[in-house]
Amino acid sequence: MNFYTRKWVKPEDLNAHGTLFGGRLLAWIDEEAAIYSIIQLGTNGCVTKYMSEINFVSSARQGDIIELGIKATHFGHTSLTLTCAVRNKITQKTILTIDKIVFVAVDEFGKPIRHGRTEITYTDERLRE
Amino acid sequence: MNFYTRKWVKPEDLNAHGTLFGGRLLAWIDEEAAIYSIIQLGTNGCVTKYMSEINFVSSARQGDIIELGIKATHFGHTSLTLTCAVRNKITQKTILTIDKIVFVAVDEFGKPIRHGRTEITYTDERLRE
Amino acid sequence: MNFYTRKWVKPEDLNAHGTLFGGRLLAWIDEEAAIYSIIQLGTNGCVTKYMSEINFVSSARQGDIIELGIKATHFGHTSLTLTCAVRNKITQKTILTIDKIVFVAVDEFGKPIRHGRTEITYTDERLRE
Amino acid sequence: MNFYTRKWVKPEDLNAHGTLFGGRLLAWIDEEAAIYSIIQLGTNGCVTKYMSEINFVSSARQGDIIELGIKATHFGHTSLTLTCAVRNKITQKTILTIDKIVFVAVDEFGKPIRHGRTEITYTDERLRE
Amino acid sequence: MNFYTRKWVKPEDLNAHGTLFGGRLLAWIDEEAAIYSIIQLGTNGCVTKYMSEINFVSSARQGDIIELGIKATHFGHTSLTLTCAVRNKITQKTILTIDKIVFVAVDEFGKPIRHGRTEITYTDERLRE
Amino acid sequence: MNFYTRKWVKPEDLNAHGTLFGGRLLAWIDEEAAIYSIIQLGTNGCVTKYMSEINFVSSARQGDIIELGIKATHFGHTSLTLTCAVRNKITQKTILTIDKIVFVAVDEFGKPIRHGRTEITYTDERLRE
Repeated sequence: MNFYTRKWVKPEDLNAHGTLFGGRLLAWIDEEAAIYSIIQLGTNGCVTKYMSEINFVSSARQGDIIELGIKATHFGHTSLTLTCAVRNKITQKTILTIDKIVFVAVDEFGKPIRHGRTEITYTDERLRE
Repeated sequence: MNFYTRKWVKPEDLNAHGTLFGGRLLAWIDEEAAIYSIIQLGTNGCVTKYMSEINFVSSARQGDIIELGIKATHFGHTSLTLTCAVRNKITQKTILTIDKIVFVAVDEFGKPIRHGRTEITYTDERLRE
Repeated sequence: MNFYTRKWVKPEDLNAHGTLFGGRLLAWIDEEAAIYSIIQLGTNGCVTKYMSEINFVSSARQGDIIELGIKATHFGHTSLTLTCAVRNKITQKTILTIDKIVFVAVDEFGKPIRHGRTEITYTDERLRE
Repeated sequence: MNFYTRKWVKPEDLNAHGTLFGGRLLAWIDEEAAIYSIIQLGTNGCVTKYMSEINFVSSARQGDIIELGIKATHFGHTSLTLTCAVRNKITQKTILTIDKIVFVAVDEFGKPIRHGRTEITYTDERLRE
Repeated sequence: MNFYTRKWVKPEDLNAHGTLFGGRLLAWIDEEAAIYSIIQLGTNGCVTKYMSEINFVSSARQGDIIELGIKATHFGHTSLTLTCAVRNKITQKTILTIDKIVFVAVDEFGKPIRHGRTEITYTDERLRE
Repeated sequence: MNFYTRKWVKPEDLNAHGTLFGGRLLAWIDEEAAIYSIIQLGTNGCVTKYMSEINFVSSARQGDIIELGIKATHFGHTSLTLTCAVRNKITQKTILTIDKIVFVAVDEFGKPIRHGRTEITYTDERLRE
């Protein structure tokens, strides 16, 4: 799994206890998974369909840097299944994991369509320059 | 299940397709569940521990009003289990459901503590005046 | 009056003193009143026209849960008059009240039109399931 | 009255109709009035106490530039009374006016204290360099 | 140079150190420069093309009021060059300066077009009423 | 140069023309550069000191995915110099480049301190698992 996007936990990201607001974290994950799916499927037309259970293993505090890892695990005809992990960039401690996130390619009316992809096309060699 | 909090889908809530951004919806749910837990457990010291699988049944568009329903289903010693549904306020169409969301009461160091509650203490009679 | 929507005061909602930013509170009220009007008038096409004087009775702090109550008090031909109260969910202490908020139903050019409603159509029985 | 702060209406500021969200406008006004009060009273310790009735005369659309005008009208012992107008910067058309906004100087416990000011100390000559 | 727009540094504007987030400040400057350009060029169709080097001279803290100054320094055929300074409103201490910010008038396809302006048309007499 | 963080351009990120708001882009860059500096210098105590000139080469539209690349180019005693590029993830077209961004390690009073680092310590092998 590759970890690309990093976030710096700022006051605007905190809940009322002063730790990272869980909802903010879920929003970051959904955006990162959408980005990964759009890149792999080559289309902006894909929507979140399903997330498997989520364990909130540990939290994060103001000033922490966290990184989000996503990896494609299965290409269906109209769907793409991802797996996700979030961890503290410095300590490498897991914050949460989601075993399965499913995106579906859809047409302009929201109806599932075949995306024609069968394997990961962008990998981290794109990181090398 | 009671549906309290309502949201009006505004441009700032949309993803790049112009439909409700899934991450925004998850953030709304997590906040609503936290509010419900704080009210039931009588303490601000409670954190999201677990969410069961999430099915995104339908989406929402700009201008839609959606409502979030939460209900306590089990009181553990240190935990509280909730169930959640989100639907379109006008059409009553389900947007998503989450079978189980678990919150845990914690002390100032984040260690689980007994919350001492065994049943729902605030119900919708609080809505009547 | 029914109190539906609840808010959890988070760091992003605070002013520079560390108490709830008044402007944020006014934005929450305007959204809640718009939602209520849209539901009652059955149209998205309604705009805030007037608010009577506002007394800021008490404030709120990080971690507080507040609830917003709205009730229709008069149905005009093109307008709907609401009354509003905001209070601390736990202590029930009033935060502010607004005696009159007037919404007007408008056509696509912003011109007032008759909305055809004369009484409250959605009440809290919608909360029971 | 001097008009200082200007805002550019962006998609994040719109309501679900695509016009300027009234709540956003109220938040802008409250912040601008707080800034004006802090400058005049020479203390960060001042809070919004009262707003007189608000007439929403016209709206604004994406891309519009609006300007906010504030002027002190009365210095009480612990309070400061302001008047406010918001208009379109280009057309000069009024968007809304608020006759009275009252701020009160408070100590660290939120209790009103004398601010010792009796007249406007910062005027627009500060704009000249 | 005239200083119009003022900002009140709130918790949502802070970085993880608790000082004003530099990125937030840059966003405020870009918006203020865009507003100034739109007013001077009389068109919404203008985009940021260039900023000269930026020195972050001092920072700001929660509760500080800062003011943004912009002035046109050169009118090209399709461009407008501005200079910018940001300072603490109370202490007058400089926070940052940007020597040159260039905006370009563009048509609907983003191609530069002549704007026909050769001098400052709106000055602070607009502040007097 | 490695490109880690990716952003999906959503309605909340647009200016009033419907293209990516330049200020939002600058805020993203400043956060990404801060994250990179914190990781390299091993301390949260570092602040943006300088940015060299910025050329806005092309823009981005709603739905575009952009990626931000940062690389350390010089380690001073108290400073770290970075270079930055932003491009469209799919088309690889450059959006903007900033030749030099300088961060400085500071103590709790904001005074520069030696950071003790002389070379890049985290590289993309951290991406491999």
